[in-house]
Amino acid sequence: MTHPLLEKHRATLDGALSAIQTRGYWTPYPEQPSPKVYGETANEDGKAAALRHGGTNFDLHQPGTRGWISTERSPYGVALDVRYAQCDPQALVDAGKAAMEAWQQLGVDGRTGVCLEALARINQASFEIAHAVMLTTGQGWMMAFQAGGPHAQDRGLEAVAYAYREMSAIPAEARWEKPQGKNPPIVMEKRFEVVGRGVALVIGCGTFPTWNTYPGLFAALVTGNPVIVKPHPGAVLPAAISVRILRDVLNDNGLDPNLVTLAVFDDPKATQALAMHPDVKSIDFTGSNAFGRWLMDNARQAQVYAELAGVNNVVVESTDSYKAMLKNLAFTLSLYSGQMCTTTQDIFVPGGGIETDEGHKTFDQVASDLGTAVERLLADPAVATAVLGAIQSPETLKRVDEAPQLAEVVLASRKVDHTEFPAAQVRSPVLLKTDAAREAVYMQERFGPISFVVKVPDWKAAVALSERTVKQHGALTVGLYSTSREVIDAMTAATLRAGVSLSINLTGNVYVNQSAAFSDFHATGANPAANASYSDSAFVASRFRVVQRRWHAAG
Amino acid sequence: MTHPLLEKHRATLDGALSAIQTRGYWTPYPEQPSPKVYGETANEDGKAAALRHGGTNFDLHQPGTRGWISTERSPYGVALDVRYAQCDPQALVDAGKAAMEAWQQLGVDGRTGVCLEALARINQASFEIAHAVMLTTGQGWMMAFQAGGPHAQDRGLEAVAYAYREMSAIPAEARWEKPQGKNPPIVMEKRFEVVGRGVALVIGCGTFPTWNTYPGLFAALVTGNPVIVKPHPGAVLPAAISVRILRDVLNDNGLDPNLVTLAVFDDPKATQALAMHPDVKSIDFTGSNAFGRWLMDNARQAQVYAELAGVNNVVVESTDSYKAMLKNLAFTLSLYSGQMCTTTQDIFVPGGGIETDEGHKTFDQVASDLGTAVERLLADPAVATAVLGAIQSPETLKRVDEAPQLAEVVLASRKVDHTEFPAAQVRSPVLLKTDAAREAVYMQERFGPISFVVKVPDWKAAVALSERTVKQHGALTVGLYSTSREVIDAMTAATLRAGVSLSINLTGNVYVNQSAAFSDFHATGANPAANASYSDSAFVASRFRVVQRRWHAAG
Repeated sequence: MTHPLLEKHRATLDGALSAIQTRGYWTPYPEQPSPKVYGETANEDGKAAALRHGGTNFDLHQPGTRGWISTERSPYGVALDVRYAQCDPQALVDAGKAAMEAWQQLGVDGRTGVCLEALARINQASFEIAHAVMLTTGQGWMMAFQAGGPHAQDRGLEAVAYAYREMSAIPAEARWEKPQGKNPPIVMEKRFEVVGRGVALVIGCGTFPTWNTYPGLFAALVTGNPVIVKPHPGAVLPAAISVRILRDVLNDNGLDPNLVTLAVFDDPKATQALAMHPDVKSIDFTGSNAFGRWLMDNARQAQVYAELAGVNNVVVESTDSYKAMLKNLAFTLSLYSGQMCTTTQDIFVPGGGIETDEGHKTFDQVASDLGTAVERLLADPAVATAVLGAIQSPETLKRVDEAPQLAEVVLASRKVDHTEFPAAQVRSPVLLKTDAAREAVYMQERFGPISFVVKVPDWKAAVALSERTVKQHGALTVGLYSTSREVIDAMTAATLRAGVSLSINLTGNVYVNQSAAFSDFHATGANPAANASYSDSAFVASRFRVVQRRWHAAG
Repeated sequence: MTHPLLEKHRATLDGALSAIQTRGYWTPYPEQPSPKVYGETANEDGKAAALRHGGTNFDLHQPGTRGWISTERSPYGVALDVRYAQCDPQALVDAGKAAMEAWQQLGVDGRTGVCLEALARINQASFEIAHAVMLTTGQGWMMAFQAGGPHAQDRGLEAVAYAYREMSAIPAEARWEKPQGKNPPIVMEKRFEVVGRGVALVIGCGTFPTWNTYPGLFAALVTGNPVIVKPHPGAVLPAAISVRILRDVLNDNGLDPNLVTLAVFDDPKATQALAMHPDVKSIDFTGSNAFGRWLMDNARQAQVYAELAGVNNVVVESTDSYKAMLKNLAFTLSLYSGQMCTTTQDIFVPGGGIETDEGHKTFDQVASDLGTAVERLLADPAVATAVLGAIQSPETLKRVDEAPQLAEVVLASRKVDHTEFPAAQVRSPVLLKTDAAREAVYMQERFGPISFVVKVPDWKAAVALSERTVKQHGALTVGLYSTSREVIDAMTAATLRAGVSLSINLTGNVYVNQSAAFSDFHATGANPAANASYSDSAFVASRFRVVQRRWHAAG
């Protein structure tokens, strides 16, 4: 009764199901862009494939095509000019609905098998997708490969595993035998069907066009829903390649490819109109508070899963590894120029300074040593460009330029030359320091490589300020450096109350801004930065419903 | 590490976990009000206990008590005059929040154990609660006992089981070991905590004050949330007794009883104000579309789980058991005077009549034979009062009185005398017939013992009308009588599209309005009659969040 594609990928599914139960380390998609794993020519082939889309119509053969549109502008200064179909949104909705019944009838195993096959083929296209991610988002190559390729695939698979677990917990059939004392039992036959909710809209962001898109895309798809992927206008290509693969897999398996379509708009009004379409029943969104709030207030017919802005922070109270702490923080602030939703913005340090393995450090020393650590990390231009990548949007460039007006500069941002991409907009982080009283300065998201060392009266005030910041403004990550059990316990309690994940004393090769699929829950859904998590049962359970029928069993 | 109360009730939990996986017949709470099971004097004791509350202050010793209020009026004409504390809503919210941290720290096993103990004690109080249900709702005794007692407890336990399954799928801790080729792995220790969302408000209805309250109450509670139970002003006592037991169990286990409180209001504005309190994070509601819609539109800070109005319907195309079909339908229309959210309102019959084992029956014959079947069922006054119970609200009485103005009367409602309760408001069902074109007549909920035999052109029109009714107005139940595979398949497809459960050819002792916990999903959440189901993972998964912390494992 099971589906051939489920059997083909059974080991992957079983591994994922086991991983979400233990949440230890696991992945089926190798994160090293190694020729041994992906093939000797995989990198060149992938790069060529990505670049070959430039100047062409990326034709997915979708219904309702009315014209072609080019919306991307590479932060590396590379001319892309890929043109995407402008499709009538109503045609995409209609086509998705038309494809839905057969997709539902394929059943849980069949849908899961098709999604696993799509993920496997997406994995094979990791280099093409990674180059597309790099060119459109400005990520450095290694991050583009890992976060845009295998790690994004992990997150997609994780969502499939959670959804499979929930759906397969519903028995397809049951026999209900109610004892009647000495009389024969009453016997009923029952059947239970998992049905999708309706068209799912997945709205991507400009910085992580696959990592933040695959969870919602695969969660909605595997639970029986048609999906319209609406990428950020600045980072369409990685989504377009992914959608193409999904449509190919559907086609290859005799299914209607219009189950998954790509909607490219350059006008937010078009996205808003689609989001409010009565047949759109779920929306996955990563982006600004303003647009996210608009969706929640207006697209009332849909369940909205939103990841919004936040003010991530770290409390520094004491450390027994001062240099390693600074190095760890410096990398976090620098990676992809702080353009991660998990990057630390505020570092709360007691005004009286901190105790370290190198003796007492004043507040000003901590700030200046952190600045030095950033400088040292980025001293080699090759390392700097690899770590920083390029600045994705003009708005972020503007924020970096204007940051020095906000507070005292500890470390100024500088423009970094990129040897391979002379037109790339590369900036090192700007580090500022300020007093806790100046909340307007540091207690709102300033997306990009802009961070504040904030002077707080003492560690208790730091913990309290961290908790309040998370409760009021949201956060995806919080960190703590302390050698004191009392402080660690207080911060643990504060983060449980505020509903945010906590990284304690990170000094090695794990960073507060990293979130590993199958182990780290990305966002909690319990504070204003997000109303959902990658991935847990809440992320998948409401994407389908169970419809039953019953009758008297034949005597 | 597990909790003594979980160990005590381990067999019950294991049974429930197995039942939700197979959804066959199962219950730990005997549904027969038998002296052998519940004790020789259980009935008299329970009745006396229920009546003893009359004329007294039902004192739960809650914070913020400002006065006492009596809101109930028995449909049986029995003077109750139980007085409940009027508590300051802010005091209840504050007290719940204060109790929340210790409740969370008790952990999944502890919370589950406490909930199972409370359900066991509620089961022991089944007779007291059942008499309270009967007197306040007007249900007949047997229904009051079964639906208000063991069946309601089943639904509470079912929600606990789903929540336990979801929460215990989150590992408390993990060790994350990422291989680094020839180098030592990166090792992280991780901890995962299940945390509640905040204060839960559970708003009960006047007809099923425990059956529709326990699922939300126990789902919210076991997932770590304080709960404020706001019963319908007409049916407070069953909820008050339940809350008293919960508070006793909390007290007995060294926990703050203010985790669960009772809020009695006679003014909907007070409920609205509480529903919009920023600390109220979830609302379970059973009741009118108007109030439910208001909650969804206004209590935006909370997740709302709502069961609203619907237009349940049955398609009659053909049958090989004409008499048994009529008898089955007659019982459904009569049970608790049609005051169940699952009672059939519309019966769609082809204008050309139907084929039966007794030959062809015209549309008019089917209608009139159904009327006769109802009359026959209720011919014996003792049976009639036992089946019908009393009419719960003056609004329903008014609807019954005015129903003959709507369409041609097939069977008029009559007042039935009750020997034990002379003041009881007992009414037999009114059956009307009308044409499918007159949608205004039959295509809105007319709560109570009011049903329509609706003339449709043919069976295809009947199936289409059923589907449209469900999609536009919602339904909890749909039925079909047909001997044709083609018709059954068409109706199956229609109900899958509309998202409503289907009962096929019920002719024995199972009725379309019955929903058995652990087997039948009550509501799908897929049509306008409800946005949630008793119970599935979606009903519990968003009531908690997971908060993690991590650190480098010691070398």
